[in-house]
Amino acid sequence: MTTEQILPAPASATCCTTLTGEPLDQGQAQDFARILKALADPTRLRLVSLVAAHEGNEACACDLIDPVGLGQPTVSHHLKILVDAGVLHREKRGIWSYYSLADQTLERIAAFLSPA
Amino acid sequence: MTTEQILPAPASATCCTTLTGEPLDQGQAQDFARILKALADPTRLRLVSLVAAHEGNEACACDLIDPVGLGQPTVSHHLKILVDAGVLHREKRGIWSYYSLADQTLERIAAFLSPA
Repeated sequence: MTTEQILPAPASATCCTTLTGEPLDQGQAQDFARILKALADPTRLRLVSLVAAHEGNEACACDLIDPVGLGQPTVSHHLKILVDAGVLHREKRGIWSYYSLADQTLERIAAFLSPA
Repeated sequence: MTTEQILPAPASATCCTTLTGEPLDQGQAQDFARILKALADPTRLRLVSLVAAHEGNEACACDLIDPVGLGQPTVSHHLKILVDAGVLHREKRGIWSYYSLADQTLERIAAFLSPA
């Protein structure tokens, strides 16, 4: 069993950075744009919501293919983007990967977008 | 003086839809992806944060060009994307457009992304 770790958040993207606080510098804007870009796709939003709604808040890639109606390579590609952005965790067990929500990233992006 | 109105939120993107609640249907996923896509760009995030930090929470396009270091047509293009997605309001006065935050859209997207 291998647990893949997500990279720690960049120093400039702290808990307290908000879109409507102090003007963002270029580094902060790039950090948050990267996470938002991973989420800014209908299929990826559906995949995240399917993982969240799955029993145990964890889903096998094999559980996600039918509900989104796309082929396995396409679903794997979208899941990789979500893992790389720190939105989902991936854990490999046997031939399948299991995905769970990285709550901390969603909390950070929700706090970032909350109006002051 | 002309005030441009943003379109009302689509019926499927209600106040209570969350990413980690019930699985999203395709329409909900498309509505939220559209707003997230508008935000998922470093320059556009900086423009929103500059408008929010400006005196009176409103900024003239002329105030935004120097801080982001891009030409006026490029800045206008990014601002149009933010207005079209309902993230910023635009009001024309004379030759300049003035931009302010559409708090409701940011609140809706922050609530959508908040973990259950």
